[in-house]
Amino acid sequence: MYLIMVYDINEKRVNKVLKIGRKYLNWMQNSVLEGEITRAKFIKLKNELKSITKKEEDSIIFYKLRTMRYFDRETMGVQKALNEQIL
Amino acid sequence: MYLIMVYDINEKRVNKVLKIGRKYLNWMQNSVLEGEITRAKFIKLKNELKSITKKEEDSIIFYKLRTMRYFDRETMGVQKALNEQIL
Repeated sequence: MYLIMVYDINEKRVNKVLKIGRKYLNWMQNSVLEGEITRAKFIKLKNELKSITKKEEDSIIFYKLRTMRYFDRETMGVQKALNEQIL
Repeated sequence: MYLIMVYDINEKRVNKVLKIGRKYLNWMQNSVLEGEITRAKFIKLKNELKSITKKEEDSIIFYKLRTMRYFDRETMGVQKALNEQIL
């Protein structure tokens, strides 16, 4: 499946969340990662995130799509991920 | 169409961007809004955003879907939008 992950994390833990996210997905811009992922890896990703986030303070939204074909991405302003040569 | 908007904006302008976004979409969590929007209103939204953002510093990603049925949303941790009674 194709996953978009957007996180809103206490700054004490935000770098750890980014580091975990990057193991599975591509960084797009501040607080946003996306990429193709298997269901098994998605479960691993969530388990890793659960182990370091605090559920009373942190929030992560996952948008799960069957395939990339179901959406169009449009960027306004700097395309930050391009600087990283991910796209 | 259904729109997910994620922004990464210089803090000087971030409140203005949020205010514009809220006119058209529902706030989900820090830097994320989403909602059903017509193409005409999407153009208006982009024009308003263009008028106040700086394209060398700010970045906004729009994920455009034909319908909400094409994705599942899963939240980990606090569901911030619930506190606002939007969902």
